[in-house]
Amino acid sequence: MDSKEISKAVIKRLPRYHRYLGELLDEGVDRISSGELSRKMRVTASQIRQDLNNFGGFGQQGYGYNVEYLYNEIGKILGLNKVHPMIIIGAGNLGQALANYHGFEKRSFKLTAVFDIREELKGRMVGNVKVLMTSELESFLKDHPAEIAILTLPKSQAQAMTDVLVQCGIRAIWNYAHIDLVVPDDVIVENVHLSESLMTLSYNLSQYREDHEQ
Amino acid sequence: MDSKEISKAVIKRLPRYHRYLGELLDEGVDRISSGELSRKMRVTASQIRQDLNNFGGFGQQGYGYNVEYLYNEIGKILGLNKVHPMIIIGAGNLGQALANYHGFEKRSFKLTAVFDIREELKGRMVGNVKVLMTSELESFLKDHPAEIAILTLPKSQAQAMTDVLVQCGIRAIWNYAHIDLVVPDDVIVENVHLSESLMTLSYNLSQYREDHEQ
Repeated sequence: MDSKEISKAVIKRLPRYHRYLGELLDEGVDRISSGELSRKMRVTASQIRQDLNNFGGFGQQGYGYNVEYLYNEIGKILGLNKVHPMIIIGAGNLGQALANYHGFEKRSFKLTAVFDIREELKGRMVGNVKVLMTSELESFLKDHPAEIAILTLPKSQAQAMTDVLVQCGIRAIWNYAHIDLVVPDDVIVENVHLSESLMTLSYNLSQYREDHEQ
Repeated sequence: MDSKEISKAVIKRLPRYHRYLGELLDEGVDRISSGELSRKMRVTASQIRQDLNNFGGFGQQGYGYNVEYLYNEIGKILGLNKVHPMIIIGAGNLGQALANYHGFEKRSFKLTAVFDIREELKGRMVGNVKVLMTSELESFLKDHPAEIAILTLPKSQAQAMTDVLVQCGIRAIWNYAHIDLVVPDDVIVENVHLSESLMTLSYNLSQYREDHEQ
């Protein structure tokens, strides 16, 4: 299967399919029809059929989809069939929250260390890993190459840290700092700008009020 | 100005304009040309001119934009000109991280309480507010109506809690639980599904490798 033929719109919906199929697997469901999946996910059955047709002809009429096969195929497209070593930069509340989220490990993201500049945090356990000092970053990454760095540090330090991480071979940055990072073309950045999400919420709230209340 | 005439694509870009304009204000910048803003934001100057033309004709040729005016106008569209009382449900790491983020308050989101079911957290200070017990939720909301509830509780409890919140008059839910909530039409939900964002990252990483490495 050539994943390049799959449209961006479908790709955007894949994590949600993956989540629902994972829940079905946990519930011990082997097969599911597009109709049932449609009711569960609240999208039309024809949308589901169209989307999943991208993954070959294994949704036979009357038999439904093989849940495990589909889950694994979608996982491969999402790059979840390989282990992704990752580090967290910033051991504050958000860094700790992410370090403690074990759902990532289930999806083959492996946290190897958390870094901070605050001496008082040195050696503290966060999730299953130790807090190391940022001064140890380079030597740590030489011995334990990581692929993804999660930035949960203050915005003012984010760009300088990014430059160091890129030099140390980090290939992807999951950025929670409220800043647009500058990186070389071969480094992937995925931003989680939480306050932008909250503003979208308040925009929708205001619009709703304007439309429905006098 | 009728905000309904502004297209969805522009609306999606507004939080980012708002952020950059806020930074310029903090730096004491009064006016900025679309060219300068374009270099800062790394979008084309013509895109900026087109987008900001939605906010009236106050970007005079040769004079640039009035930073404060634009910041305030965009803020109004985003609903930031009113105070939005909000509560957090779930005083774990993520709930605490959000409670401690003071950028929200600056943008007129006012946290009034954090709720949890764990007795041992009762009365603890998180950010500037106290942890209350979920059993106190109804009576608290009667005396202190809130508009937005932030769900940072386990997925298994999210829907039941949502039903209670909606009954208590909550109008918008900022949902971090990894589940699609069912709510009445007049309740706004904005989801932050962090693992879907991480999967997008790993998808982009895999695609990049496929395209550039053998």
